[in-house]
Amino acid sequence: MKKAVFYHAGCPVCVSAENKVITLIDRKNFDLEVVHLGEEKTRLAEAERAGVKSVPALVLEGEVLHINFGASLSDLR
Amino acid sequence: MKKAVFYHAGCPVCVSAENKVITLIDRKNFDLEVVHLGEEKTRLAEAERAGVKSVPALVLEGEVLHINFGASLSDLR
Repeated sequence: MKKAVFYHAGCPVCVSAENKVITLIDRKNFDLEVVHLGEEKTRLAEAERAGVKSVPALVLEGEVLHINFGASLSDLR
Repeated sequence: MKKAVFYHAGCPVCVSAENKVITLIDRKNFDLEVVHLGEEKTRLAEAERAGVKSVPALVLEGEVLHINFGASLSDLR
């Protein structure tokens, strides 16, 4: 089981992307965690270390997929 | 079976995103088509109509997920 983390901030762009990612992703192979960075600010540093510049973003196997653009990570501090 | 179209242009950002999308996507529910817009220029208009502004991008169920940024669609003409 591989791990994928979807970071978002509750914005409309985030919610729309989240819905798509949830339907798209192969849940047999990926364990998907959804993290709301507006509510879990303690995880901002972790997202930053993973290379997340903006949300929504999906991190998997050490790579970041920035999906559309909702907000910069710096605006969530 | 739902249809998903991944548009790219062969750029390094595109290839990296493509690899991720191919592993991520639930192929039991999604029929994934990969379109190289540099080689299939006749499909640029279709991508544009779908709302694609840049590649790589994934179109599914009428929505566009722009994934990272490789090139603007206008630069592929």
